[in-house]
Amino acid sequence: MYSKEIEQVLKKGKITPGNYVHVANPNFSSDGVLIPRPNFGDESILVLKLSNGYNVGIRYDAKTKIIKLNKVAAKFSFPENKLKFDKSKPKVTLITTGGTIGSKVDYRTGGVHMLLKPEELLYDVPELSRIANVEVNNLFSIASEDMGYKQWQDLAKGVESAFENGSRGVVIFTGTDTMHYISSALSFMLERLNGPVVITGAQRSSDRGSSDAFMNMICAFHAAAESDVAEVAVCMHTGSSDDTCSLMRGTKVRKMHTSRRDAFKPINARPIAKISVEGRIDYISEYKKIDAGKGRKVDLMTGFEPKVALVKFYPNSDPEILDYYVEKEYKGIIIEGTGLGHMAVNPTEAKYSWIAPLKKAVGKGVVVGITSQCLFGRVHTKVYSNLRIISNTGAIYCEDMLPEVALVKLGFLLGNYKTEEVKRMLNRNIVGEITARTEVDWFV
Amino acid sequence: MYSKEIEQVLKKGKITPGNYVHVANPNFSSDGVLIPRPNFGDESILVLKLSNGYNVGIRYDAKTKIIKLNKVAAKFSFPENKLKFDKSKPKVTLITTGGTIGSKVDYRTGGVHMLLKPEELLYDVPELSRIANVEVNNLFSIASEDMGYKQWQDLAKGVESAFENGSRGVVIFTGTDTMHYISSALSFMLERLNGPVVITGAQRSSDRGSSDAFMNMICAFHAAAESDVAEVAVCMHTGSSDDTCSLMRGTKVRKMHTSRRDAFKPINARPIAKISVEGRIDYISEYKKIDAGKGRKVDLMTGFEPKVALVKFYPNSDPEILDYYVEKEYKGIIIEGTGLGHMAVNPTEAKYSWIAPLKKAVGKGVVVGITSQCLFGRVHTKVYSNLRIISNTGAIYCEDMLPEVALVKLGFLLGNYKTEEVKRMLNRNIVGEITARTEVDWFV
Repeated sequence: MYSKEIEQVLKKGKITPGNYVHVANPNFSSDGVLIPRPNFGDESILVLKLSNGYNVGIRYDAKTKIIKLNKVAAKFSFPENKLKFDKSKPKVTLITTGGTIGSKVDYRTGGVHMLLKPEELLYDVPELSRIANVEVNNLFSIASEDMGYKQWQDLAKGVESAFENGSRGVVIFTGTDTMHYISSALSFMLERLNGPVVITGAQRSSDRGSSDAFMNMICAFHAAAESDVAEVAVCMHTGSSDDTCSLMRGTKVRKMHTSRRDAFKPINARPIAKISVEGRIDYISEYKKIDAGKGRKVDLMTGFEPKVALVKFYPNSDPEILDYYVEKEYKGIIIEGTGLGHMAVNPTEAKYSWIAPLKKAVGKGVVVGITSQCLFGRVHTKVYSNLRIISNTGAIYCEDMLPEVALVKLGFLLGNYKTEEVKRMLNRNIVGEITARTEVDWFV
Repeated sequence: MYSKEIEQVLKKGKITPGNYVHVANPNFSSDGVLIPRPNFGDESILVLKLSNGYNVGIRYDAKTKIIKLNKVAAKFSFPENKLKFDKSKPKVTLITTGGTIGSKVDYRTGGVHMLLKPEELLYDVPELSRIANVEVNNLFSIASEDMGYKQWQDLAKGVESAFENGSRGVVIFTGTDTMHYISSALSFMLERLNGPVVITGAQRSSDRGSSDAFMNMICAFHAAAESDVAEVAVCMHTGSSDDTCSLMRGTKVRKMHTSRRDAFKPINARPIAKISVEGRIDYISEYKKIDAGKGRKVDLMTGFEPKVALVKFYPNSDPEILDYYVEKEYKGIIIEGTGLGHMAVNPTEAKYSWIAPLKKAVGKGVVVGITSQCLFGRVHTKVYSNLRIISNTGAIYCEDMLPEVALVKLGFLLGNYKTEEVKRMLNRNIVGEITARTEVDWFV
């Protein structure tokens, strides 16, 4: 229910939720469909669904006018209570895992009421039922920062089932914090993937009415139902305006801002495509396409070794941290070096040199990979002599892989292959996580 | 010496280094001053100094034409052997520390011949003598990844001496790998700074003739000799073209690319100014200005506690790493959380929860600060319940500070203040490292 004040104004104007209205105050004016209030949040905020699928909240006060328009919203209709299977549309499985977007779409609360039935989702985002027959699999409800490799394994199995059950594509809702770790893990675990697996979420805490959840969902469903991308990809706002989402390779994307809707950026890559809320898909880089001659069956490879560590080098950092992980019987370590992949080699205090601990770790059979904390660009072994010295310890330079991706890849490899094979594969491309050449426009 | 082939062509055309020439091949054409070949590198590359102070290398082949122009280069003259003090110009001290730029400017080799006298520098970059009376202090020669807090302390003392000896500003050449750690350290150590301290370097390995060293140097000298900025700032290429450098606050800058010339970007800030190679300074954000009523005397505060650690949280990361640092008697830990400052709180496997180890560390008197691995944006304690739970352990959320800056600040504070004071100061602004409000255009 809206506040009593609003309810009276609505009653007076013979306005009910679902009506197309004009709302104006000194700061804002817009047309849209009045949305029923959820059972949470600020009762004095009117919520309109705009024609772009995006919801906006307007605080009601004495200066706010609401006028009913004699017009039906162009692209909006409440779904029927019981969903019918529409043969003209593909089936898309939605797997929910928790996070702001995974809960029922209470865009102004962040409340934790989980989405239970497709009907609930389609009531809030009716556009989805025009894109696909949606099947919902509420796999679990865990904040993404609490997720680990066991959840990644369950997710991979969920995707396998979705394709076995006839889905054309899969959409996954997760929290955004570790979304790029999740997308990396699924990229490696889903062998022979032959359909789109599209991960999306809501970046803004959605208690303002201005959640990004809706457009992200709609674009993700377009990608899953209509694109020919046979990869794991993240689908999130391209910019701060609500016009397009970027579909980004799961191993070439990173959360680069704590709170902005366009926080996810492709790193050392262009997006695969940009997707408008109306469903236009503009492909802008190469990607693995669906092979029409094959089915959607995936081969799971869900082994994962959790004893892999990500260690950042910084001035005055004590390399004994490597000894610590060796003693704890870790199987792999990814180091975030500086610049082209540096650690201290000849510091004035010898105890800060990373060479002896690196040699020791490699000697004990630990697989050590080197990445760069710059994030953008590529590590090298040949530009400076210090790089050659580090490389000679047996540490493996990981090309243009992100540190987080290298970490997930190393856990994946160690969980499925023998050590020698892991060393061979760590800096060779498997699913697009390493590109042979860096292009100039891949930087901000 | 150039290659025999080139020497013959030059001889035939009566061209000697220092002449103004036109060079053209099917891919390139330019006018500039022919530069004498250094004793390193590829002999078949002609090097021209362009009017913007930038050097360009052109591979000579049969299709390359060199024509002597009857014209003297506008802004170029070889310096006199003995430098005269020019009273009309300010004195700027150049402190060199090593790194590509710190060595004699052998722009095509990366050779390690260190710059010994001002004459050598001014021979290669004569523009500098038109900006300032340059005094060179070759402090040490250490790759920046090998530098630690002891070098930061020496540098701070070097800056103090430079101002005591009458310099208007200071330029520091360092390697780029840890330049943003160095700039942070100096920002905190130089109390009551009342003149520009400008750090620059060369990002590209300079063996191609297309080094960024020259423009960076020239812009840095303009900043030190002519700007009214009383801060520690990094001065590096703004974009990939050679028109301007950005002057960026030392605590709001980060190396974001392994190899590009425009690798350094302001994070959660705009640049202080853009500086053209001709010396035009466009100020674009607020900064601390020189107080004309005061001298240049700085108060050093060089205490530093090296037992501070930077720990990154990631899925499956074992929080026992905190216990490790507590046992090693570390005094401070900065955590790079995900998103708004998250770590696992309620994972399915309890051992991955960071809450108990956090409480233990704080209980033992370790100062723990929380930042975000997103880099852009600001951590919060209130948006999600997990954030409140982490905050309640006594860990301190560090606003919009970069993880690396928080690490350096924590080491600085612990080296100079008592623990309770450190806790109070960690997330309060001292020198611009924390901004009260984030603006929309501070993201890429």
